[in-house]
Amino acid sequence: MEPGPLGASGPAEPGPRVRGGCGAAPAAPAASLAVAAVLPAGGSGERMGVPTPKQFCPVLERPLISYTLQALERVCWIKDIVVSVTRENMEAMKGIIQKYQHKRISLVEAGVTRHRSIFNGLKALAEDQPDSKLSKPEVVIIHDAVRPFVEEDILLKVATAAKEHGAAGAIRPLVSTVISPSADGCLDHSLERARHRASEMPQAFLYDVIYAAYQQCSDYDLEFGTECLQLALKYCHVKAKLVEGSPDLWKVTYKRDLYAAESIIKERISQHICIVMDTKEDEEHVGHHLEEMLKNELNHVTVTSGPLGHAGRDLQQIILEQCYSFVCVNVMTSAFEETQKLLNMLKESHLSVLYPVVVISVHFLDYKSVHFDHKMENLMQIRELAKEVKERNILLCGLLIYYPQDEQKLQDSLRQGATIIATLIKERNSAFIGQLLVA
Amino acid sequence: MEPGPLGASGPAEPGPRVRGGCGAAPAAPAASLAVAAVLPAGGSGERMGVPTPKQFCPVLERPLISYTLQALERVCWIKDIVVSVTRENMEAMKGIIQKYQHKRISLVEAGVTRHRSIFNGLKALAEDQPDSKLSKPEVVIIHDAVRPFVEEDILLKVATAAKEHGAAGAIRPLVSTVISPSADGCLDHSLERARHRASEMPQAFLYDVIYAAYQQCSDYDLEFGTECLQLALKYCHVKAKLVEGSPDLWKVTYKRDLYAAESIIKERISQHICIVMDTKEDEEHVGHHLEEMLKNELNHVTVTSGPLGHAGRDLQQIILEQCYSFVCVNVMTSAFEETQKLLNMLKESHLSVLYPVVVISVHFLDYKSVHFDHKMENLMQIRELAKEVKERNILLCGLLIYYPQDEQKLQDSLRQGATIIATLIKERNSAFIGQLLVA
Repeated sequence: MEPGPLGASGPAEPGPRVRGGCGAAPAAPAASLAVAAVLPAGGSGERMGVPTPKQFCPVLERPLISYTLQALERVCWIKDIVVSVTRENMEAMKGIIQKYQHKRISLVEAGVTRHRSIFNGLKALAEDQPDSKLSKPEVVIIHDAVRPFVEEDILLKVATAAKEHGAAGAIRPLVSTVISPSADGCLDHSLERARHRASEMPQAFLYDVIYAAYQQCSDYDLEFGTECLQLALKYCHVKAKLVEGSPDLWKVTYKRDLYAAESIIKERISQHICIVMDTKEDEEHVGHHLEEMLKNELNHVTVTSGPLGHAGRDLQQIILEQCYSFVCVNVMTSAFEETQKLLNMLKESHLSVLYPVVVISVHFLDYKSVHFDHKMENLMQIRELAKEVKERNILLCGLLIYYPQDEQKLQDSLRQGATIIATLIKERNSAFIGQLLVA
Repeated sequence: MEPGPLGASGPAEPGPRVRGGCGAAPAAPAASLAVAAVLPAGGSGERMGVPTPKQFCPVLERPLISYTLQALERVCWIKDIVVSVTRENMEAMKGIIQKYQHKRISLVEAGVTRHRSIFNGLKALAEDQPDSKLSKPEVVIIHDAVRPFVEEDILLKVATAAKEHGAAGAIRPLVSTVISPSADGCLDHSLERARHRASEMPQAFLYDVIYAAYQQCSDYDLEFGTECLQLALKYCHVKAKLVEGSPDLWKVTYKRDLYAAESIIKERISQHICIVMDTKEDEEHVGHHLEEMLKNELNHVTVTSGPLGHAGRDLQQIILEQCYSFVCVNVMTSAFEETQKLLNMLKESHLSVLYPVVVISVHFLDYKSVHFDHKMENLMQIRELAKEVKERNILLCGLLIYYPQDEQKLQDSLRQGATIIATLIKERNSAFIGQLLVA
């Protein structure tokens, strides 16, 4: 069987995501191929040096494992996802599934080692389990809970190769030279880098192959083995097909990897900004200037802009599926009507379930002429508004941009305003909610 | 020779750093041992996916290589640091050395491969070079420009082991299983993880050993070889001593590693906060409350507090050597006198040469009773003040904390104030300079 054409899907994480379905269906490995995934998540995360197991560490306040589940569940052709968690984390895991509305997940109890956890996951998929609601898949994907950036592309490649070869796994070039030490702690020899690869996840197997391998496994293998591909080779004589993966397959191992994961996710959800403008015709130009400057500040960012209201229904549909950053432009007014409309729209959607949504209420005012009057006091209401929507994971901030007659001064304040907006969007930090910043 | 006792030095990066010297001298490998370092920095950073070679990518607006130089130059017993850079980056590199006031650095031209760059660095240290101002070292350390977190501890261990064994290198456990593919792209076998290690940097050699090895090297080795330890073994029959390194030795390879590096550096320079209070006796308690709450917000953070002025000279000495984050507490005043004094002190020091220094001017005011009066307008002067000190890499921000009679309300505003301060310090983002935030 040849690999099917790859779906033109973007990165699995976060990308557009329609609730209750899988969005535009990419090419499944075969219409009839039943695929399940097993995700061992019983690890203690010793290497991280933090008390929480790494798969439960928060990234933008959401546990890491939820991002991995999101990446798997948006792949339509994965029918079931079996997660092994320790008994003590079972309730927490149920809470995560409920809070972030994950679908197609079954939980089993983890074993004391990674291999035992995978075996428990596989058992739940066996057809000889009397009380199981799951059906036996033809191919099973094994992935790590701490590799949240897996893309559909590589999942499809390993599943397809497993169907053909019985087993398949993702590999990556070695970053460091691998050496073999002698007994006295000296260099015995270096391995030739070009002839070796790092074995990564995901891996995939014909279910019958990997289940048979685990059933024959020795206790020693279950305790100390690390590699599923090696088990398939040893017990079933199946030589796994190796598939070159992308750098995205990296595993969150150390604390620095959590920092990197958070930065990557923040960057990805800041790639699209929606600017809402319901301004009079003669005021539109400031909004457009701001838009241009934002494009300069944030590389590769796309900006959708337009009014809210009746004509904005299409806009509403577009932005709610792809966009986690909103700028609401108000000219010569300190009122929050437009911002309030936008907030109501966002509250009705489920957009902020998975990611914190940033909303910046921008007010162009000639504040140096108007003195600190009731307009300023009006703007201070943003504090209450922000507190209210924070509960819905919406981060609201106000920005007052100086709007003088002088064109050069306007350019300066627009530039500073764009820098502040870009930073608020990129950092996505809840400490600044309700603030009224000034440009 | 046994390794000498290790100096009780903290992390090499950033730690205290006295200009023009090496601070409290840790144990040198031997009083008489002459050590130099060679830093190949001619790479193009293909894997990063960015046009700038990774060693020149900015981290907190400073090129990555400057952090690595800082880590090496604070080790007193490394007499010379030879950096190989490509001809096209030579001027940029000179600019970096000047701007960040690096010492003991010599530049040589990089070769087209890593090995040729190292060889050029070694040649500059050879005594047969007629025009060289450098003297031949007994031991030479080879390190990577993209491993900024190297600590003195491991440098000392490899230098000491090289003196005894002729060669030594840092190693780390493997993160992934290493496999050997067969010609048809299938798994041939997995390597036993426990019997292999990743070879990392730094490495160290008796100068005569590694220089002789490079002189005998084939062109093939110079073009395609990756491992200095292997060259010492092949050409000089020297079996390198392997030294277990810490996770800090990781190499900035991918874009995500730059994110991680920036987060780690931000975290390290935010570990100590200096709170400056020159308040009347009956107002001191709000400062102390704030201090307590900051300790809650920022784990493991130490806080030094006290007045400026004559009595504060000791304080001045302490803070300027270790601290990149300042909170200036003002009670019932919108004046910036104290903050201005602090800023003057900081401008006179060289503290902000290496890292952006955060200063937060905190004003406790009962702003809900006073209406928007001249005090508020006074506070707006912070914008000009911030613009002025930004040029010196000082990030100034204002924070107005609500100071009512009601104890419970005061607690609430203190808590919010502490969160904002902690975030400004951790994020260290220049977009918010000159803002007047409100808690």
